[in-house]
Amino acid sequence: MVLDKIQKENDIKKLTTEELDQLRREIRAFLIKSISKTGGHLASNLGVVELTMALHLSFDLPKDKIIWDVGHQSYTHKILTGRKEGFENLRQYGGMSGFPKTCESPCDCFNTGHSSTSISAGLGLAAARDITGEDYSVVSVIGDGSLTGGMAYEAMNNAALLKSNFIIVLNDNNMSISENVGGMSKYLGEFRTADAYRDLKNGIMNSLNKIPVYGERVVKRIRRTKSGIKQLFIPGMLFEEMGLIYLGPVDGNDIQAMCKTFAEAKRVDGAVIVHVLTKKGAGYSPAERHPARFHGAEPFDIATGLPSKPRTKANYTDIFSTVMKKMGERDPKVVAITAAMADGTGLKRFHNVYPERFFDVGIAEQHAVTFAAGLAKAGLKPVFAVYSSFLQRAYDQILHDVCIQNLPVVFAIDRAGLVGSDGETHQGIFDLSYLSTIPNMTVMAPKNKWELSDMIKYAIAFDAPIAVRYPRGEAYDGLRDYRAPVAYGRSEIIYLEKGVVLFALGNMVRIAEQVRNRLKEQGVSCTLINARFAMPFDRECIREMAEKHSIFVTMEENVRSGGFGEHVESFILEEELPMNVVNISIPDCYVEHGNVELLKQEVGIDADTVYRRVMDEIKKQENEEV
Amino acid sequence: MVLDKIQKENDIKKLTTEELDQLRREIRAFLIKSISKTGGHLASNLGVVELTMALHLSFDLPKDKIIWDVGHQSYTHKILTGRKEGFENLRQYGGMSGFPKTCESPCDCFNTGHSSTSISAGLGLAAARDITGEDYSVVSVIGDGSLTGGMAYEAMNNAALLKSNFIIVLNDNNMSISENVGGMSKYLGEFRTADAYRDLKNGIMNSLNKIPVYGERVVKRIRRTKSGIKQLFIPGMLFEEMGLIYLGPVDGNDIQAMCKTFAEAKRVDGAVIVHVLTKKGAGYSPAERHPARFHGAEPFDIATGLPSKPRTKANYTDIFSTVMKKMGERDPKVVAITAAMADGTGLKRFHNVYPERFFDVGIAEQHAVTFAAGLAKAGLKPVFAVYSSFLQRAYDQILHDVCIQNLPVVFAIDRAGLVGSDGETHQGIFDLSYLSTIPNMTVMAPKNKWELSDMIKYAIAFDAPIAVRYPRGEAYDGLRDYRAPVAYGRSEIIYLEKGVVLFALGNMVRIAEQVRNRLKEQGVSCTLINARFAMPFDRECIREMAEKHSIFVTMEENVRSGGFGEHVESFILEEELPMNVVNISIPDCYVEHGNVELLKQEVGIDADTVYRRVMDEIKKQENEEV
Repeated sequence: MVLDKIQKENDIKKLTTEELDQLRREIRAFLIKSISKTGGHLASNLGVVELTMALHLSFDLPKDKIIWDVGHQSYTHKILTGRKEGFENLRQYGGMSGFPKTCESPCDCFNTGHSSTSISAGLGLAAARDITGEDYSVVSVIGDGSLTGGMAYEAMNNAALLKSNFIIVLNDNNMSISENVGGMSKYLGEFRTADAYRDLKNGIMNSLNKIPVYGERVVKRIRRTKSGIKQLFIPGMLFEEMGLIYLGPVDGNDIQAMCKTFAEAKRVDGAVIVHVLTKKGAGYSPAERHPARFHGAEPFDIATGLPSKPRTKANYTDIFSTVMKKMGERDPKVVAITAAMADGTGLKRFHNVYPERFFDVGIAEQHAVTFAAGLAKAGLKPVFAVYSSFLQRAYDQILHDVCIQNLPVVFAIDRAGLVGSDGETHQGIFDLSYLSTIPNMTVMAPKNKWELSDMIKYAIAFDAPIAVRYPRGEAYDGLRDYRAPVAYGRSEIIYLEKGVVLFALGNMVRIAEQVRNRLKEQGVSCTLINARFAMPFDRECIREMAEKHSIFVTMEENVRSGGFGEHVESFILEEELPMNVVNISIPDCYVEHGNVELLKQEVGIDADTVYRRVMDEIKKQENEEV
Repeated sequence: MVLDKIQKENDIKKLTTEELDQLRREIRAFLIKSISKTGGHLASNLGVVELTMALHLSFDLPKDKIIWDVGHQSYTHKILTGRKEGFENLRQYGGMSGFPKTCESPCDCFNTGHSSTSISAGLGLAAARDITGEDYSVVSVIGDGSLTGGMAYEAMNNAALLKSNFIIVLNDNNMSISENVGGMSKYLGEFRTADAYRDLKNGIMNSLNKIPVYGERVVKRIRRTKSGIKQLFIPGMLFEEMGLIYLGPVDGNDIQAMCKTFAEAKRVDGAVIVHVLTKKGAGYSPAERHPARFHGAEPFDIATGLPSKPRTKANYTDIFSTVMKKMGERDPKVVAITAAMADGTGLKRFHNVYPERFFDVGIAEQHAVTFAAGLAKAGLKPVFAVYSSFLQRAYDQILHDVCIQNLPVVFAIDRAGLVGSDGETHQGIFDLSYLSTIPNMTVMAPKNKWELSDMIKYAIAFDAPIAVRYPRGEAYDGLRDYRAPVAYGRSEIIYLEKGVVLFALGNMVRIAEQVRNRLKEQGVSCTLINARFAMPFDRECIREMAEKHSIFVTMEENVRSGGFGEHVESFILEEELPMNVVNISIPDCYVEHGNVELLKQEVGIDADTVYRRVMDEIKKQENEEV
């Protein structure tokens, strides 16, 4: 195995051309086999095997810096920097992350996770290098999808101004940018890497200066030409317009061609963009055919490409998907928005049936929210379906464009709470906090699948900004008999006793049930309330509880700071309600990747911990009474 | 006066050409006179008098929709829609807003305030119009500065895809985009508004196809030409590359030319961008010469352009400016970043002395923060100086790029708290809340000018993410003798007594002093603590206070929800400290424009209200004891 010769960074440089060719096949086979067992991001990683090899051949790690945008495509990079063994426990609790991590290797120079950050971070490194007088290359590798995120433009704009030596590698897998790009000849590609390319463009300008003289004739002659100058220059011209040097396109399958272009890029003064054409899922036909399905895959059967353990139960996304299709039929004013997550959010079905009322705006959460505000202002009922951690990017737009004007935008927040294997950048554990800071916002969370459906319907009928947050994964189908109509700011009493109140939000109701059963076993009477609304929470209910309860337990899958529990505590304190409070929430820290059940234990929001903390509080009260 | 004929929208359409010419002079004179008395945004409004008139002549309000990006340039729009009288109380408490407000007029179709939102909002209106089958034009007016904000690109990207009829007016005042733009001939402008323009570009492509044949010769001939093809096409080509139709440039002083172009734009199918060349401050030479100074001006003397009431005391921005210059000298690792606010944040001085360590990244807060993360990762000490309300836009970048990696970025947050006349979009009353939700973040606020200086120095020496928030306006120069060294997470005791504790953050220490004096007059003993750290707040101190105090008053200039007080309350409740808490903060609502002292009374954080609430609590406790 050539792969065995790769024990650390730069080992790849010792290989012969034949060995390199062998290596790429071995890496691909390794990735397929390994991810088929652990799950993980397959398609994007298969697409950049050769690109990553070319980068490692062309640059000197860890002295030179490579920043992977989003970072889920860094598996080959991990292999080439001595982390092959880590794949056995990829994305598992205590195991290797699926993203670059500075704590894993000095060759990971900047943590990523969310889209479109790599140019900003890389430019920062490059600018710092120039100030401190050091000498290394900085390379940001960004996909064409990530380029739809506005901060990538902000960064390119700035890169053009700064004139620091800085290389942006556009990993163009043809998923977003016009396929015309692929039609450019290799000749043109080589031409553009030479001095002659820049001069050519000067020449064009001079030619153009003459056109008005005989413009009329030119115009007539080419009136039949369909496409414009764009066809020739996309996307190079766009980047050159912004002030970057453009090199490429270069074949992302051709290691030698890429190395040659990277060498050229290093010689260029200023910010340069190298356009590399890759293919998602390359080398594994199920992934080539269904790149979206193999984006973040569960374990699968290599021969068929099908999941090893087919799902038997619906997850929350499925429920949302179904209710959106229904609501689209019921109300022609309902429109749906996604930021490049039609599959992940379940809006694909809505799109299939109501394409004219569906908007995929790209990886552009900021625009998505203000666009939704515009739709709402004009009388429609926009539903923006988005992952909790990605909505963080539109905090200002929610506050400034939706909520100041009190516009009826529905935020369907998927992946709220712990998401598991994607780790700290993707945990949806802040939304209750950041949304609670925004006046005019209403926030709900459902206890089970039927309540998600009820809440989405309630939200669509609601005439102000409103969010429904629900977790990743299987939808809870217990407590079916509890389906009181959703009423503004009101909770739902599941079991009414006395002594202890479990006031649980969303997903935590299920855990509260388990805790209650164990308390009952110990002879402790226990009220269970489904909070339903995090904002505004049910103040009347809490006041009533104070009459017959001495312990009030808030339960949420969110960080403590600024969360549901703190708001309730502030209320209980100011009302001087005679109840001791137990705040069950995630400590104020980032939570790493791993199995969600393990993570819940780790952060102390599992049934065991909650039960123990309640029992401790009961004992404390008993002691105080003695 | 022609101006007297304008009583409502569309009245302008009844005027003769001569009257229009008279009107623009009258509007300009009115704006200068009016703003010289009340203060307000002068330069930007003088620049768009004719542009606004042309828009009102070309479109039918309120049926057609005009969205003003940022919105501080909407004064002429307000005059033309019957709000001339409102200028007497412009930006004053209860008076007319300096921004578009849907509650003021049906001709204000969408509220704005922050930069770069208008294309997203306008596209939402246009898409909704197409779905509901209505018929009206949507026009978003955006400045060239606002185009540096990423969400404007996200929106243009989406506009190109949607193909809805939609007009973007680029109000290009030459403040950001290359001045070459201005050199384009009127001939070219007219040429481009015709069919021939599109065909010309096709022709160019055909010409280009031939160049490689005799490329070598062309290349040699024009090797001396300095600038490239960009000079001819900027910025049109960039927009066409993105898929928008480009019309212009058109002279923003020429009402007829603009009307002609707008008529053309209405005929175009899809999204079109009309490039209008304007001049900030046009028609008033002090503003033309110093557009930045007249951006948001205080009342001034018309003859000289100088402020009517020159400042006598330093404001917090001045203090920050001075300390940054000092720190730049002391430590070559200190670098400064602004998002297009070098003047407003006081970084201009740092820029003058250390230009190579200063970065103005444009109106691009997202990039600014991740760029700072890169600089910090490479070993520098970046200080990002930014207004509180604008930092909202970088919430995800603070959380995801700075704080997960625990990078030592300093956030110097100016305009924190109530800002006054700019109103609800600009109030810096959320930062304590949204920053508190982020693990690894430290947040400080100084009581006076010396403490701001100490805190900035402390922050620069600190090895993790840290923010210093300070208010707009005059720096407090009282309590000079209290200057204990800043220590992590520790408060500063100003007066130690018993009974009541005032635990005040930042600016509120000054008010706490006043409250304490009045309490003392009533014979109430009172401890005053300068909290210093909002996060982590001084838990040890609070525990100690519980020994001899029964009333604990938290004081902050921030909304209640998720703020400083709530965190403290949660702590006091869980620790079961025997103190009643009075939470002094801004109610969870948006706060309109007006004089800051009036606003403080309105929201209940002034000395009178605090005093009354403390006395009420004292009486309540006395009654309970009886």
